[in-house]
Amino acid sequence: MLLKAKVLEFEAKKPVAVLNKSDAEDMDVKPLERLEIICGKKSVVAIVNIAERTIKQGQIGFFEEIVEELGIKNGQNVNVYPVQQPNSMEFIRKKLSGENLTGDEIEAIVMDTVNHRLSDIELTSFVCSLHDHGITFGEAAALSNAMAKTGKSLNLGKRDVYDKHSIGGIPGDKTSVLLVPMIGAAGLTIPKTSSRAITSPAGTADRFECIAPVELDMKEVGRVVKKVGACLVWGGAVDLSPADDIFIQIEYPLSIDPLLLQSVMSKKKAVGANYLVIDIPTGKGAKIKTVSEAEKLAGKFIELGKRLKIDVIGISTFGDQPLGHAIGPGLEAREALNTIITGIGPNDLVDKATQLAGTLMSFKKKGDTKAQALNILKTKKAYKKLKEIIEAQGGNPEIKPHDIPIGCKKVQIVSNVSGTVLSISNSSIARIARAAGAPKDSGAGVYIHKKLRDCVKRGDVLFDIYADKTYKMNAALKLTKEGSIITVGDKFNMLLKRIPSTQEKKYFILER
Amino acid sequence: MLLKAKVLEFEAKKPVAVLNKSDAEDMDVKPLERLEIICGKKSVVAIVNIAERTIKQGQIGFFEEIVEELGIKNGQNVNVYPVQQPNSMEFIRKKLSGENLTGDEIEAIVMDTVNHRLSDIELTSFVCSLHDHGITFGEAAALSNAMAKTGKSLNLGKRDVYDKHSIGGIPGDKTSVLLVPMIGAAGLTIPKTSSRAITSPAGTADRFECIAPVELDMKEVGRVVKKVGACLVWGGAVDLSPADDIFIQIEYPLSIDPLLLQSVMSKKKAVGANYLVIDIPTGKGAKIKTVSEAEKLAGKFIELGKRLKIDVIGISTFGDQPLGHAIGPGLEAREALNTIITGIGPNDLVDKATQLAGTLMSFKKKGDTKAQALNILKTKKAYKKLKEIIEAQGGNPEIKPHDIPIGCKKVQIVSNVSGTVLSISNSSIARIARAAGAPKDSGAGVYIHKKLRDCVKRGDVLFDIYADKTYKMNAALKLTKEGSIITVGDKFNMLLKRIPSTQEKKYFILER
Repeated sequence: MLLKAKVLEFEAKKPVAVLNKSDAEDMDVKPLERLEIICGKKSVVAIVNIAERTIKQGQIGFFEEIVEELGIKNGQNVNVYPVQQPNSMEFIRKKLSGENLTGDEIEAIVMDTVNHRLSDIELTSFVCSLHDHGITFGEAAALSNAMAKTGKSLNLGKRDVYDKHSIGGIPGDKTSVLLVPMIGAAGLTIPKTSSRAITSPAGTADRFECIAPVELDMKEVGRVVKKVGACLVWGGAVDLSPADDIFIQIEYPLSIDPLLLQSVMSKKKAVGANYLVIDIPTGKGAKIKTVSEAEKLAGKFIELGKRLKIDVIGISTFGDQPLGHAIGPGLEAREALNTIITGIGPNDLVDKATQLAGTLMSFKKKGDTKAQALNILKTKKAYKKLKEIIEAQGGNPEIKPHDIPIGCKKVQIVSNVSGTVLSISNSSIARIARAAGAPKDSGAGVYIHKKLRDCVKRGDVLFDIYADKTYKMNAALKLTKEGSIITVGDKFNMLLKRIPSTQEKKYFILER
Repeated sequence: MLLKAKVLEFEAKKPVAVLNKSDAEDMDVKPLERLEIICGKKSVVAIVNIAERTIKQGQIGFFEEIVEELGIKNGQNVNVYPVQQPNSMEFIRKKLSGENLTGDEIEAIVMDTVNHRLSDIELTSFVCSLHDHGITFGEAAALSNAMAKTGKSLNLGKRDVYDKHSIGGIPGDKTSVLLVPMIGAAGLTIPKTSSRAITSPAGTADRFECIAPVELDMKEVGRVVKKVGACLVWGGAVDLSPADDIFIQIEYPLSIDPLLLQSVMSKKKAVGANYLVIDIPTGKGAKIKTVSEAEKLAGKFIELGKRLKIDVIGISTFGDQPLGHAIGPGLEAREALNTIITGIGPNDLVDKATQLAGTLMSFKKKGDTKAQALNILKTKKAYKKLKEIIEAQGGNPEIKPHDIPIGCKKVQIVSNVSGTVLSISNSSIARIARAAGAPKDSGAGVYIHKKLRDCVKRGDVLFDIYADKTYKMNAALKLTKEGSIITVGDKFNMLLKRIPSTQEKKYFILER
């Protein structure tokens, strides 16, 4: 059918074409079905929307993406015809009915996902089918491979590649900022890609961006890693797993993440990792509550790793409180940088970073690798490597902690009782830091003065809140009134929780 | 946050607001989360989209629906703030994890569905959760009640209300056009609402629209039924179950229909039905292949009916071929009208209509109710009632079959062998009729001259194709080349099907 293009000056983020109802009926296409649009020598497959008033009969509306791709002008004639639902939808239906999928079927689904051939409804049904029916290890490996294959990948030749991943959930977890230079200084290759925060106050990409540029493309990452053996970049700019970026949009509002493992491993596969440490923070305020749960999850990473030829070790770490003192991109960057420059930092931070670095080193090195990692930090070899990384990524290697801006507004929260810190709520601290503006306002966040088991006198500062904007500071302060953030007392309260008949809401954090 | 409205001249079909990325980050809202929009004294909750270029910082884009609802003008200031995911999403997550829902939880989900508080992703996860985990009869009853409650309902006082529903799938099934006047003429009340075609060549609303107006609102339906005891209207205009209209949009592309039973029964509940006959066409070309499958399905309708206080009888009918000769709205309307006017029509059509009408009458009447129904047809009492219905619905009661326009282009398809009709493919006939333009071009369709067991001589006309437009006729003719539509032969071929290792695609038809 020949139709006249109407340019809709709006971004749809995917190829969408809008038909008048009557034309749609003439072509027998329904909303969310597909149309091939032919304009000169170019063509594209678009998802169909239907309008009754704003698109007239004989017209077809295009959002910016198609307008740009086909170079369409207002009033131009285009040829359109219906195309069938892609084969991958047959495979999704197969999984929906409880059958397992072959590697080829999974690859077809992932290919059509990244090519925007599947509508949100179809993609959601795929995610739900995985959530409901589970994923075999064979399917998981095929998913990881397909997700890696449809993205960009890093080729570092024959050298061994090391990597580390945390499943997240601990505010202030700046371990990677210390670990990457340590591993690099140990002579090992670590092309670390990290995410930005989704629901947390800071992702590693947000933290390190206060120290050096992190939005490097794959070519630049290759250059940096070949030169200095390590990098700390934002995974989003590298385009490691475009399929995952799409799946996350579906999983997030549903608070389910059946693709978590596959997503993490696809990105490790894409950077060519051979050795991987998975950090699983464990504790009452963490995503994983007990060591035995952590063992189960680690077992899945290890098994999937075997199928992808990645040697995996899982580490369950203490997750009952935030790591270090600083929460929020700028505050955390200051703390991490100061620790690397001086070789001295918060005990828990240094312990965790050296433990994980030592574990990575232990894949090939002998002896007390944790002590070796600590030595690398103390002797400033990690700092030397960090400066190389900063310079290679286009930053100023002489950057000092006080060069990193933090929020101009500061409010101190004091204790109104004396005693010992009995608990710190990870989720409350995270919510306060986000309300104060983190991660968008990079200087916003929380600085904790009193941690678990610290002695507190009435009037002592428990934590500071930093913000750039008054209305955000006020929103954060409002949250400090809501129940216990840092609990101070003489003794533990025997009551853990009243269990009422009504349901508790989950607070969901997803990191990959 | 105070933002300046930008009117986007485009229809979104649901309340959508578009934020600039930076403002979204400041408010900590993500795509598909929710925003309350306050404009003067009016407010609305909208689903959030995020733009990077077309909406500037400080702006907020609104599609037509919100612009109209709030009376917003370009450049006007509006106040917006984030609102939480509705509670119903907690209940959807509960079902996703395999738990059953309470009646209140189901009502909350259905309420938020009709109020457009749930995004497509969230709705899809609900439909998939029902598909995967199944629905208890308690849940089914709650769903039907909630779907009826959120729509309009018909109040006819204390009189008994009769209704009939077919699960569809048989081309040319014009039973209701005969049955409704018969039941009305028998002195029973039957406020029949019907659907338009989704994937078939004609729905009953499409057929009857060739005879009389069918787009009556609930008030008009009440007036018609109180006056003449019966009606034949399009369910869409009556707004019986707005939730179902939304669920269908999700189910259709996935080819799953976990809400089929609930949807049908919600609409029967909404018109106040006490007695219901469910027609289940059964046969190799039908949706239900065997009588035992039909029994299972009928059992579900009966059980759900008990909980909704609707007395249900299921009828499994012969579904191996199209019903009557005519397929397509106009052709079918002519055939049905002619049958009522003369009291004589195709055997299968008259047999089925009198059988179903007799079954409905048997709820309260004694004796051979099928014969009574046939008598009503033969003595033209059904025709008299039909004229009353046509007049009450605003049509011309003197309409005759030849007043109904049919396609101006006609092509005859002849047999190139002699023998007996061994099979007629329902799906091929339906596809040809649709390709020829049905249901949009109401005169388009197929007229079958030779039905099962009829004798055929080489050169005899098997069927005619009617169309309004040459390109549609060509598309239909192309389909006649694809394999056997009407198979003529001497004996049945012992080979039913080769079963290859590759998968067969399902051809899906949904009717409710």
